[in-house]
Amino acid sequence: MGGDKAPKVVLQGAEIARKRYPNIKFIIYGDTAKIRPHMDQNPSLAEVSTIVHTDIAVSSSEKPSNALRGPLKQSSMRLAIEAVKAGDADCAVSAGNTGALMGLSKIIYRMVPGIDRPAIASFFPTLRGESVMLDLGANIQCDADNLVQFAVMGNVFARVALGANYPTIGLLNVGSEELKGNDDIQEAHMRLKESSFPGKYVGFIEGDDIAGGTTDVVVTDGFTGNIALKTAEGTAHLSTEFLKRTFKSSIFAQIGYIFAARAMRKLKHRLDPRKYNGAMFLGLNGVTVKSHGGTDGLGFANAVSVAHDMVEANVKEKIKEDLANLEI
Amino acid sequence: MGGDKAPKVVLQGAEIARKRYPNIKFIIYGDTAKIRPHMDQNPSLAEVSTIVHTDIAVSSSEKPSNALRGPLKQSSMRLAIEAVKAGDADCAVSAGNTGALMGLSKIIYRMVPGIDRPAIASFFPTLRGESVMLDLGANIQCDADNLVQFAVMGNVFARVALGANYPTIGLLNVGSEELKGNDDIQEAHMRLKESSFPGKYVGFIEGDDIAGGTTDVVVTDGFTGNIALKTAEGTAHLSTEFLKRTFKSSIFAQIGYIFAARAMRKLKHRLDPRKYNGAMFLGLNGVTVKSHGGTDGLGFANAVSVAHDMVEANVKEKIKEDLANLEI
Repeated sequence: MGGDKAPKVVLQGAEIARKRYPNIKFIIYGDTAKIRPHMDQNPSLAEVSTIVHTDIAVSSSEKPSNALRGPLKQSSMRLAIEAVKAGDADCAVSAGNTGALMGLSKIIYRMVPGIDRPAIASFFPTLRGESVMLDLGANIQCDADNLVQFAVMGNVFARVALGANYPTIGLLNVGSEELKGNDDIQEAHMRLKESSFPGKYVGFIEGDDIAGGTTDVVVTDGFTGNIALKTAEGTAHLSTEFLKRTFKSSIFAQIGYIFAARAMRKLKHRLDPRKYNGAMFLGLNGVTVKSHGGTDGLGFANAVSVAHDMVEANVKEKIKEDLANLEI
Repeated sequence: MGGDKAPKVVLQGAEIARKRYPNIKFIIYGDTAKIRPHMDQNPSLAEVSTIVHTDIAVSSSEKPSNALRGPLKQSSMRLAIEAVKAGDADCAVSAGNTGALMGLSKIIYRMVPGIDRPAIASFFPTLRGESVMLDLGANIQCDADNLVQFAVMGNVFARVALGANYPTIGLLNVGSEELKGNDDIQEAHMRLKESSFPGKYVGFIEGDDIAGGTTDVVVTDGFTGNIALKTAEGTAHLSTEFLKRTFKSSIFAQIGYIFAARAMRKLKHRLDPRKYNGAMFLGLNGVTVKSHGGTDGLGFANAVSVAHDMVEANVKEKIKEDLANLEI
């Protein structure tokens, strides 16, 4: 029931994901009256789906702490996460309220031993391919322990989500010199330099290294990560808008666009935000993936794919292994 | 002597600025042996310039604290700032080491009464025109007092640098709801909401509001501001690179480029980073402007123009006035 156009987009996404994974099964939590008509039009999806009715949903403006108690205990979001906890589902995917989804996942799944705080991780296009960044907003303030654990989790996420065998990892800072940044970031830097987990820590990186793709993994606190991600999104949107205006600015530019249209469509496809939809909650004893609330069916299906890959790869066990091997 | 191609770029910039401001005069601090040949080729610049020789320069890799003592007491950077303090110059412009330039400016000029910490401010293109952001890296950690003072200073800077009569001001956060962010940012928010300085505080804004131009002024701490600025620069570079590759990707795209070339050059000009060169150090009893180290003569001249406008507008007095009228 989450996202701007629920449940339509979620069900469209489920249908696309069904074609990708022939053995997939869905338990769909929400208002049957709204879900049923879509299912009737889509019998192949209905065949692999179980609908569990609830007319309680967490709204996007709900205070996350409210989602944990009271009448919202029967929300579609909570029921989905409970199903993962109970072993009835392998993972939960939602386009709903991020804070509520994280709060519920944390309380219900609990943390992986050795991880103090969960992180939200996602991937994005860069000059050199794709990279991942975490934390994107689960933790406003982070200490050195958190940052080191994010590096461990980001390393696993990059291996699974990007297929990088031996990811490079950078710690986001205001300069690359060792003196830069606050005490926590400097302590995390010293510890990562001497650590032994199976990723290559390269040191401090700066804001322009994110889109530059300097490292496969960008580690930062949730405040900075959230702002950096949205700043990049905003700047990409600005570039696209200016380009559109430029192609419309003269008759010659319009003719130019006709010739370049096919290449421009390829570029658009290359940078399609739906390709990068699906933020993973790392560090928990269960898989929850957050879809962007404004995406469409294809975007939602991609979030399902992220969840699918995380389950297949058994990310939780990989994080535990790396933590066990970590000598800091 | 600062920047990648000193003193050439600085002197080229001075020559361009001389044409803009017929009454301008320069005191140029640095190695006479390197400066003199440029002056010989440019007698009109030589006519308005006094060269003060020193062969000591602060390198870009110098630890800022080293610039404050020992042999670097005779550095070209320090001498320029001392000249402003002594009243021999109205402002200092440098393309050198940012940390050293800020450290020296702070120690030599001292703070405007009522401002606890200086901020680095600059302006950039947005969907709706131009906006300013501060702090871009002077202060890694900021409390509520600092953020409120940055809002006051950013408001003055937007009036002078953008010509905005009644600037709108936003506080950068991870969400627009009042609950978001840490204690300092929430306290700053509450105080700005009730404050009386002559700018319009609109509340929390997010990373995508920076390029969106939601507000004329973006207020944030120096850690976040530095990373947001560089993330935006990196993303803009990524967009440009992808666009270049797209125009080269097929013969049709190449033909398209020929038709669109004039419009594309206009776009390039519109977003030319040299237009946005010149970061102002606000909150000090003197004007220092930092030029990007990698810019060219035109970029350096634009940094001189920022300094010129700040002196003309008497920014320090405007900040004092706004502080005096501030009831929080």
